[in-house]
Amino acid sequence: MKTQNEIQQHIQLIEHYTQALAILGYDAKTGAPHNSKGQTAKIIGTLSKKLYELQTDSSFGKSIEHLLDKELNEFEKKQYEVQYKTYKRLTSIPSEVYNQLSYLKAKTSAQWGIAKRDNNFNLVKDDLIELININKKVGSLVDDHMSPYDQLLDQFEPNIHTNTIDRLFGNVKNEILPFLHQLKGRNTEHDFSFLKKPFPLEKQRKLATELLKAIDYNFDAGQLRDTLHPFSAGVHPDDARVAIKYVENDVKVAALMTLHEGGHCIYTQNVNKDLVDTGLGRYTSMGLHESQSIFWEKIIGKHKGFWKNHYYLLQNLEPEIYQNISAEQFHLGLHEVKPSLIRYEADDITYPLHIIIRYEIEKALFTDQINVSDLPEIWNDKYESYLGIRPTSDTEGILQDIHWYSGSFGYFPSYLLGFIYAAQLRDAIIHDLPNFDQLIEENRLVTIRKWLTEHIHQYGKLKTSNEILNSLNISGINEQPLLKHLKEKYREIYKLQEVI
Amino acid sequence: MKTQNEIQQHIQLIEHYTQALAILGYDAKTGAPHNSKGQTAKIIGTLSKKLYELQTDSSFGKSIEHLLDKELNEFEKKQYEVQYKTYKRLTSIPSEVYNQLSYLKAKTSAQWGIAKRDNNFNLVKDDLIELININKKVGSLVDDHMSPYDQLLDQFEPNIHTNTIDRLFGNVKNEILPFLHQLKGRNTEHDFSFLKKPFPLEKQRKLATELLKAIDYNFDAGQLRDTLHPFSAGVHPDDARVAIKYVENDVKVAALMTLHEGGHCIYTQNVNKDLVDTGLGRYTSMGLHESQSIFWEKIIGKHKGFWKNHYYLLQNLEPEIYQNISAEQFHLGLHEVKPSLIRYEADDITYPLHIIIRYEIEKALFTDQINVSDLPEIWNDKYESYLGIRPTSDTEGILQDIHWYSGSFGYFPSYLLGFIYAAQLRDAIIHDLPNFDQLIEENRLVTIRKWLTEHIHQYGKLKTSNEILNSLNISGINEQPLLKHLKEKYREIYKLQEVI
Repeated sequence: MKTQNEIQQHIQLIEHYTQALAILGYDAKTGAPHNSKGQTAKIIGTLSKKLYELQTDSSFGKSIEHLLDKELNEFEKKQYEVQYKTYKRLTSIPSEVYNQLSYLKAKTSAQWGIAKRDNNFNLVKDDLIELININKKVGSLVDDHMSPYDQLLDQFEPNIHTNTIDRLFGNVKNEILPFLHQLKGRNTEHDFSFLKKPFPLEKQRKLATELLKAIDYNFDAGQLRDTLHPFSAGVHPDDARVAIKYVENDVKVAALMTLHEGGHCIYTQNVNKDLVDTGLGRYTSMGLHESQSIFWEKIIGKHKGFWKNHYYLLQNLEPEIYQNISAEQFHLGLHEVKPSLIRYEADDITYPLHIIIRYEIEKALFTDQINVSDLPEIWNDKYESYLGIRPTSDTEGILQDIHWYSGSFGYFPSYLLGFIYAAQLRDAIIHDLPNFDQLIEENRLVTIRKWLTEHIHQYGKLKTSNEILNSLNISGINEQPLLKHLKEKYREIYKLQEVI
Repeated sequence: MKTQNEIQQHIQLIEHYTQALAILGYDAKTGAPHNSKGQTAKIIGTLSKKLYELQTDSSFGKSIEHLLDKELNEFEKKQYEVQYKTYKRLTSIPSEVYNQLSYLKAKTSAQWGIAKRDNNFNLVKDDLIELININKKVGSLVDDHMSPYDQLLDQFEPNIHTNTIDRLFGNVKNEILPFLHQLKGRNTEHDFSFLKKPFPLEKQRKLATELLKAIDYNFDAGQLRDTLHPFSAGVHPDDARVAIKYVENDVKVAALMTLHEGGHCIYTQNVNKDLVDTGLGRYTSMGLHESQSIFWEKIIGKHKGFWKNHYYLLQNLEPEIYQNISAEQFHLGLHEVKPSLIRYEADDITYPLHIIIRYEIEKALFTDQINVSDLPEIWNDKYESYLGIRPTSDTEGILQDIHWYSGSFGYFPSYLLGFIYAAQLRDAIIHDLPNFDQLIEENRLVTIRKWLTEHIHQYGKLKTSNEILNSLNISGINEQPLLKHLKEKYREIYKLQEVI
């Protein structure tokens, strides 16, 4: 048995390895030498193995199991619960299965790169089947009370399972589909071609830097670099880094992705520093993490008032394009609704449908209702049915995202759960700060950031998503605020009559 | 006892931790968030401790000790000798002494920053005394046959100890001092003020990139970033990174430092990849490492033929300054001899004196001939005596370099040993490639790089410095080629009669 002091030291080790891996991962994806990939995978493999050994250490696990039955203060209880959940999950998987899972994740994600490049799903199909099967097996081992897919979901958003998501996403789909139909064609009245004009990468980098400053991202505890797929690395509150991809003829993507990844980092940066190395100093769930990125991207970053204050950045950086475009036109351009094949670039209205398609397919895969070999067809059919457009290649279709091929099943729903949470949080802020719109128009975003810190960020894992909602007098996750927000906003923008 | 297979796996772990620490170190010094310093030190501390545990693992150490008595092939023998030397050194230090040493290194180097900022040696004096005392103690524990200072030297340049260095450095001093006296004033005939004109940092970065390409540095296995003090991180052959400091009104520093750090990395990049993770896939000694950086900085990077081919870079980047300056004038500017207080920026002739001053002081400290409290005075006296200029502040004097304050005693001599080796290697190349000057003039540097790879780089630690010299029919380290090279070159440049 370990003493409580030894347990704290053990948790600290777990945290240091987790943090080291986060830095190495950020480094590997932001300019590390091209040829170093293979060796870096080995280095990361060695540290990951050590992390696994720490997390599954039996004297550690048994000691916290023992202590969880005792009188503990709330802080220790939270700490041990978090560690014990990981311990239980990992130790219920035999190490040969765990190693096979790690191997298949690495193999399939590498093979996905080849299949995507060659636009041929068949090149990765067999690997994907194996990866899904081993995930089902892992699911059956971990917990008898939850279906394998619910267990996967539970890793990313604890306690939000298929029954809840079916309801939330079903309601979203039922309202968004007819709304999208009403909107269709409305925005062809506008010419948004200015958004597609070349915007030099160096200037986009400057824009990204200024936008991050605008939303109170702290560069003393952060960094901005180039990468191939935008992401953020929330190492700890003093180290939360953004990585952005810039596309020369699409400045909108970089601008919104910067606010998105910046939002993730603002969460990390404002966790109470006393929680560092306690195992609680990190986001409480993937859905809530995503709520923070979507809040800054879609709630603030698409607010007219925000661009009233920051549109000058584009005009100064690229006057040739933007001198004759008004802030209002630009703002309208951010709200163009246009079904597209790529999740990543989707507008607010079609975005939920991209996620729902992926959720429906994942769920069907894990309940044996569909076969992997039919995936390209199923994917394309759903795009045609929900969005009215059909992918013509595997690359744009079933091979679009790396998630499944890297073994991240159950992750996709977080994106829409985050959007749903973001709208609920927006309502809660407006309740406390009724001058919300005015704050944005007066560029007093720090007030809003501080509200988020006070009610969410600071707690790290000390409060669950649901405890945070409850503390705001919200009785649970609910899709209605999102639907209301989207419909009101887009009705106004597109001057629609009551369409729904 | 571990099997040979287990030993190989153990060495691989040691290597992976070493490599991870190199990447984390590079990251920490090249743009990691400012506020992350404290937590990064903890993360690095945790991984360093694990590395120490691996290196001092008793079953590992005893197993290789046992095997070293057996019949081994040459490769295994080298492998085990390298590991055993580290094992013996580390295990002869009691862990409480080792921990105290690590603590004092961290404490004193942090305190050095404060003392340097405040220009006050007294602020760090007591810490330095403690650090020197513990290093003496460590020295007395490790090996009875070597004096504490020789043991420190041996860590950086195995088998080159005080007796050899006294001879080498003594001869250099005896010849350089009168030569410097002859040169004095000769270069005041020229106006080199163009070198001090502002050269925008962004353009210096481009210059650095092009210079690295010019010397066959492989960017697919490398990276170039900004930092506060130039350094390189040779993680493994596929990952050897350069970090440069740019000074706006001194483009010469960035140009030469880029060639210097690039030279270190070219060594790392060309180690045989089969040696990665064997414990032998790295530079064989600090002196030989330094010979490679100095070769590219001072032998190639100050060669007239090199600038014949690359001077256009400066003219293109900053035509306003350089359009009316000839390549010859610029080349002459790189050879301005002018005693200065800063080692780092010193010319070829005074550079050895900067190192000799540090060596003489170190040696005296470790043989109890001087007191730490007298260091500022001793330092300043030596500068006045050897270079004719006297520091007027601690910052420019005794607090100039971090080395001693971070516990790196015995390191400084490597800089001059490297210069000595570089000149010996130059002779060996000229023996094999008598058209050496022509190769440089025709921009066929790859031929020279390949010679270095064939005779030095590829072997990693498979050959010692001395074995490499022997393979080139050089009977050992010798300062005469350096003195001959410098005198011939500077006599010609400054059109001196036979002055010595």
